[in-house]
Amino acid sequence: MSSLGPLKASSLYFTPLPPSHVVQPGKETHGRYMLTIPWNRVSGWGQPKIAARQDLTFDPLAGVLQYAVTCFEGMKCYKTDKGDLRLFRPNKNFDRLKRSAARLGLPHDWDNDELLELFAKLVALEAPIVPDTDGSSLYLRPTLLETSEGFGIKEDAYAAEALLYVATTLNLGQGLYPSSDGEGKGIKLDACKEYIRAWPGGTGSYKLGANYGTVNIAKKPGYAMSLWLHGQEDFISEAGGMNVWIIKQAADGFLEFVTMGLENGIVLPGVTRESIIELITDHGEGKKDFPLDGMPKKVRVVQRDIPMSEIIESLADGTMKGMFGCGTGVVVVTVGGIQYQGKQHTIPSNPLIKLLRDTVTGIQRGKVDEGRGWSFKVPEWNVEGKEGQDEERVVV
Amino acid sequence: MSSLGPLKASSLYFTPLPPSHVVQPGKETHGRYMLTIPWNRVSGWGQPKIAARQDLTFDPLAGVLQYAVTCFEGMKCYKTDKGDLRLFRPNKNFDRLKRSAARLGLPHDWDNDELLELFAKLVALEAPIVPDTDGSSLYLRPTLLETSEGFGIKEDAYAAEALLYVATTLNLGQGLYPSSDGEGKGIKLDACKEYIRAWPGGTGSYKLGANYGTVNIAKKPGYAMSLWLHGQEDFISEAGGMNVWIIKQAADGFLEFVTMGLENGIVLPGVTRESIIELITDHGEGKKDFPLDGMPKKVRVVQRDIPMSEIIESLADGTMKGMFGCGTGVVVVTVGGIQYQGKQHTIPSNPLIKLLRDTVTGIQRGKVDEGRGWSFKVPEWNVEGKEGQDEERVVV
Repeated sequence: MSSLGPLKASSLYFTPLPPSHVVQPGKETHGRYMLTIPWNRVSGWGQPKIAARQDLTFDPLAGVLQYAVTCFEGMKCYKTDKGDLRLFRPNKNFDRLKRSAARLGLPHDWDNDELLELFAKLVALEAPIVPDTDGSSLYLRPTLLETSEGFGIKEDAYAAEALLYVATTLNLGQGLYPSSDGEGKGIKLDACKEYIRAWPGGTGSYKLGANYGTVNIAKKPGYAMSLWLHGQEDFISEAGGMNVWIIKQAADGFLEFVTMGLENGIVLPGVTRESIIELITDHGEGKKDFPLDGMPKKVRVVQRDIPMSEIIESLADGTMKGMFGCGTGVVVVTVGGIQYQGKQHTIPSNPLIKLLRDTVTGIQRGKVDEGRGWSFKVPEWNVEGKEGQDEERVVV
Repeated sequence: MSSLGPLKASSLYFTPLPPSHVVQPGKETHGRYMLTIPWNRVSGWGQPKIAARQDLTFDPLAGVLQYAVTCFEGMKCYKTDKGDLRLFRPNKNFDRLKRSAARLGLPHDWDNDELLELFAKLVALEAPIVPDTDGSSLYLRPTLLETSEGFGIKEDAYAAEALLYVATTLNLGQGLYPSSDGEGKGIKLDACKEYIRAWPGGTGSYKLGANYGTVNIAKKPGYAMSLWLHGQEDFISEAGGMNVWIIKQAADGFLEFVTMGLENGIVLPGVTRESIIELITDHGEGKKDFPLDGMPKKVRVVQRDIPMSEIIESLADGTMKGMFGCGTGVVVVTVGGIQYQGKQHTIPSNPLIKLLRDTVTGIQRGKVDEGRGWSFKVPEWNVEGKEGQDEERVVV
């Protein structure tokens, strides 16, 4: 693999939008550009291209169409009050995409810096339409899939041809997740046992398309998402496509933020999840203060299985202090209730959930400095005449 | 749903190949035509079209690309010695496709007779290139997938737009499965515990693309397929993409054909599997003789879990009388050995496996009459000038 052509940002081929395209801030629903990078096992990565968003063409027997050989990432680009663009810990997404790709026999050998340079150029082109209000963003959907024929059982698990592309859209999640703060607020989940999302030895910890389409139909009307259960004990894992947490009062006076561990490969190693773990752990251990005021000193993160029975019992005995989900789409969202075995359970709200969301969105929008360099400032890209040209041109 | 436009074979729009296309029997690798039928939730099924095989285009955020919203079937078209074309129990595949589609929130409300009429026309057009030698066939790959944007979590699980298409290819499985008869022959399987193919509450019993791409990388070089294990007891389920069986000598003198049951939803309800169950059961119970001579009278089918420990013990005590896989691709294939926990286990061969294969292929090619009407004879389609026209025309 290493002798094949590497992914090179410097070979980018850029095709500007035609002069007829008028930028319509606030009216666009998708980004106008798309980044595509082809790959094949003979010559490795091909020339990256940024051009107008367009349909993609596949052989009817392509691996992505027949055998779901596709994985993706979710990233958001934020505009700060000063007008510059930010990405949140992009290398985390790139590393996870590598891991997903390896799981599917797709190429996963690129230099993250090269990929970041291309992503930065793509979002720089969208600067006019990236919104700057709280809670809004340009959502990036990097997708890596098999374009070659994936028919029958292959002697070799590796795809012959693949495509990495990035399409973008505006404000994913807005509207789906209304304000969830305050007593009695928060999204409602339906605890689902009929469809099991993931299991040890499966693909639950990889960001594969296959994990999502197979559980779409589980969602019941009136609930924001399904809360995925597994095992005899009805352990909770994720809700919809986000990691979930409970906040519990421990006997030793500590407030515990509890979420499922990664060791059995059932939940996605979320970037927001990991960031929250680090922020709270460093604060509780006295290594680095939580970036915003209001987080108690006696806090800890616990990663372990959470059975539904524990949620019900801790609601009854008062040790349940709140529940929330986190992920790139929702950032941080309060869970206000769970339907389980025909009963509605109301979860108490907790102002610390809003503090967590304000902290993470503040970091993402460059307003809050966490001292770790998580917010990547997208360089401006002053390619002369990058808008409004008819001719294709190579950008070096 | 029922008020939407139904799938109608009579509205077929047929575009012949251009006169420049010369039929090359023995040289084609894929069928030259493709059947496509669009669907959307506003108007239901659109106009079926048969035209030259071509690439398909999708929005970059289409459900099939992002969330693996795709399911498929495998069918074979055989040419008899008299030159007519046969399909094997096509309604079984159509019913299973409906079941898979429902699992993914795709449309699943068609009249099988209408679909069969369209399939028959598609394969009738390929008559010049369908091979007529034993073991060869035209393989049909009906595929049903979401073409609409499948982005984020949808309030409603139903796809907005979908496409049902049928691409064909020649001789799938030939070469991959060399002659497997006789002592010491048969394919070798690698018993795989690292990747778990399916689990209760998952999608193992549905023919979804998501079941296949996620386990591609499990296959080890030198082995024809992985033998999927699950549970603490290392129960076997399928091998590669086929159902598996063991033949055991029972204490009461019966020969038992044992395969995993369908009740926990882990294995695919294979059409070949079901056909073998019916043929052997009817024979053993004296209802209807096995179509070819040589099947003992004292036989029965048992559907139950098979732990790896039972395979090893029955090899040691001599009650293991053979092992085979079955499916549309392989039809019936002898398993000659299993690698498990670092040890090679040789499975004895059994002439009954060849008898099973000869029976099923004989039925499929119209040579053996099983008295159940399983072999569907494709009507000739004498559309005037159906080859070699430039103009598009509607066939009524």
